[in-house]
Amino acid sequence: MNYQKRSLQLHKKYKGKIEIKAKVLIKNKNDLSIAYTPGVAEVSKLLKKNPSAAYTHSIKANTILVVSDGSAVLGLGNIGPLGALPVMEGKALLFKTFGNVDAFPICLDTQNTEEIIKTIKNIAPAFGGINLEDISAPRCFEIEGRLKKELSIPVFHDDQHGTAIVVLAALLNALIVTKKKKGDVKIVINGAGSAAQAIFHLLVEAGFLGKNIVMLDSKGIISQKRDDLDLYKQKIAKNSKNKDTLGGLKEAIIEKDIFIGVSVKNILTKEMVSSMNSDPIVFAMANPDPEIAYKEAIKTKIAVFGTGRSDYPNQINNVLAFPGIFRGVLDARIEKITDKMKIAAAYAIASLIPKSKLRNNYIIPNPFDKRIAIAVAKAIVRTSKLYK
Amino acid sequence: MNYQKRSLQLHKKYKGKIEIKAKVLIKNKNDLSIAYTPGVAEVSKLLKKNPSAAYTHSIKANTILVVSDGSAVLGLGNIGPLGALPVMEGKALLFKTFGNVDAFPICLDTQNTEEIIKTIKNIAPAFGGINLEDISAPRCFEIEGRLKKELSIPVFHDDQHGTAIVVLAALLNALIVTKKKKGDVKIVINGAGSAAQAIFHLLVEAGFLGKNIVMLDSKGIISQKRDDLDLYKQKIAKNSKNKDTLGGLKEAIIEKDIFIGVSVKNILTKEMVSSMNSDPIVFAMANPDPEIAYKEAIKTKIAVFGTGRSDYPNQINNVLAFPGIFRGVLDARIEKITDKMKIAAAYAIASLIPKSKLRNNYIIPNPFDKRIAIAVAKAIVRTSKLYK
Repeated sequence: MNYQKRSLQLHKKYKGKIEIKAKVLIKNKNDLSIAYTPGVAEVSKLLKKNPSAAYTHSIKANTILVVSDGSAVLGLGNIGPLGALPVMEGKALLFKTFGNVDAFPICLDTQNTEEIIKTIKNIAPAFGGINLEDISAPRCFEIEGRLKKELSIPVFHDDQHGTAIVVLAALLNALIVTKKKKGDVKIVINGAGSAAQAIFHLLVEAGFLGKNIVMLDSKGIISQKRDDLDLYKQKIAKNSKNKDTLGGLKEAIIEKDIFIGVSVKNILTKEMVSSMNSDPIVFAMANPDPEIAYKEAIKTKIAVFGTGRSDYPNQINNVLAFPGIFRGVLDARIEKITDKMKIAAAYAIASLIPKSKLRNNYIIPNPFDKRIAIAVAKAIVRTSKLYK
Repeated sequence: MNYQKRSLQLHKKYKGKIEIKAKVLIKNKNDLSIAYTPGVAEVSKLLKKNPSAAYTHSIKANTILVVSDGSAVLGLGNIGPLGALPVMEGKALLFKTFGNVDAFPICLDTQNTEEIIKTIKNIAPAFGGINLEDISAPRCFEIEGRLKKELSIPVFHDDQHGTAIVVLAALLNALIVTKKKKGDVKIVINGAGSAAQAIFHLLVEAGFLGKNIVMLDSKGIISQKRDDLDLYKQKIAKNSKNKDTLGGLKEAIIEKDIFIGVSVKNILTKEMVSSMNSDPIVFAMANPDPEIAYKEAIKTKIAVFGTGRSDYPNQINNVLAFPGIFRGVLDARIEKITDKMKIAAAYAIASLIPKSKLRNNYIIPNPFDKRIAIAVAKAIVRTSKLYK
């Protein structure tokens, strides 16, 4: 039986993948008087008087919101709130399993930017953090930016930053394996959605050079010569390579060291790979089918090949980052997740593999390595203290 | 140590009273592929195509929203979202403990009626029902009414209907004990907030006569002679006794059989009780201190005395109703909770005590009687089928 059928079966059997669990047993009237009324009034008064006590006396201590409008669900597109629900439940399940973070999934019945912002702000008080999920670009940039400004809890769009962190982690190790340097490598990013743009920005923050990176959307190179770019893409055009060039992937990929694909299947041909520099690094992360099929990729000169899939080596999987990110955020009551924290998280993930063990097909730790979330959380907390 | 201190201690120890629990174990990549991507895409497609599959394949099957704006928290008044949080967590805890219902608490950072309605509608898709909690009157009537009209999942304001159901249950048995008849008894309801108004309406629906009921707010009898009544109170004035009379509790209580207090402590004097009919029934439900102190009440001619407290006999406690109501709602995928269902729930609670065992100090079952939620759920489901 395939994954699809087994997944349907599992979801029907359990009727959802998470449930609410009581942390406190209520066995008699005395228990009731302490956990609920009249005793609870004292806790309410404390939280009213001193809001930060919510972090020590309520679920805010360990609970985050996972929220989506279902507009850009992995591999499924704009599938709406109920379509997004099994994915958001899955995300909550991974937060608990890998980071011991209590995450509750909310699927929004609106795709209006202002309404989404207002709704999330209205329901925010009980949460220690907000993980935005599967919201389409460019709305996701506006929503994340505004919420970051207007709320005092961390807001993190995992499709952007989780992906960027793990790509950076993988890239740091791939550079070691291929003996390439951050400041020298030429990069093509194929795709210009939320993940692609976040990858661009984080790579630049981490020391890769914008002038060495070219990015493409479905219409070709993100160039200042184009008049169909939104503000976010215009900013990227200005700060990237080929800013005055038009063309497609075939032209853009020539003599590049690194291909990062967050686009569609089979768009990367063997001929294109041939035109890259020697020992190229290719992360073909289209889901479920990568930009170049594994069996094709291994016939080319690609030195390090990564995908989003668990059945090939070098799986570039967000689960390496988000549980530890929010574990750290909650442990240290961090209000903003900064680029420095994201970079520290990437280095923490990368350095879990000792340099002596790095290989072409082993640049990124296995998601079930229990050290990961702890290492990421520690990196986040350490960085937050460093730059206070 | 008193309840207050022990409650603070408990909340600090556990950092909140509920957590998220994984129903599905993720131990390896195969598990991940079934519970999450790529397998989950098939479930997403199913829910997109057939929204009712959310009731069989997602948390919607057993999850409700507990939501408050913190404007009218039991005994604490307008204490805001964080002040309300420990109470809402407590409510979620009771839903799980008594009804095996997964309830998640959301505390709203707005007290604007339209914003509350919009926000709840926006976050509703993943929930199988909505329990409104501690929202002040008259806004709660507008909010509940609108959500009932505009959503296809049940919406229940527990402060109103939970209280009304349990009062009706207690009253049905108190009538048996005192040999009084529904159609004859004269009733005074002291208090005119959300609970009081719901009690009025449910008693009338259940066969008590509006023309035998007088209701008072803090300014006296709800009478058509007054010009300071909102629309909801005007409607009650029109349908109740003394509709053309002005006066206070002292005047209103003369020759009544039943006093129902949802007001403030110590407002009911021994002299007032003396002016009531013989064998009066008094439910003094102000929290934490009743309208007449227990030690005073037992010195009067009161035949049946109930309060909201667990340390006296006849505790009139919402927990007898709400877990079973939502258990039934979820079991039968009920879209609206009707008055007939509420009345059936009250009879189900009342009839758990055999008539032969009814006594002045035993008219309502103990909340820890495990039969209650099951009996209420069955009554709800049975009634929903009867009137389909």
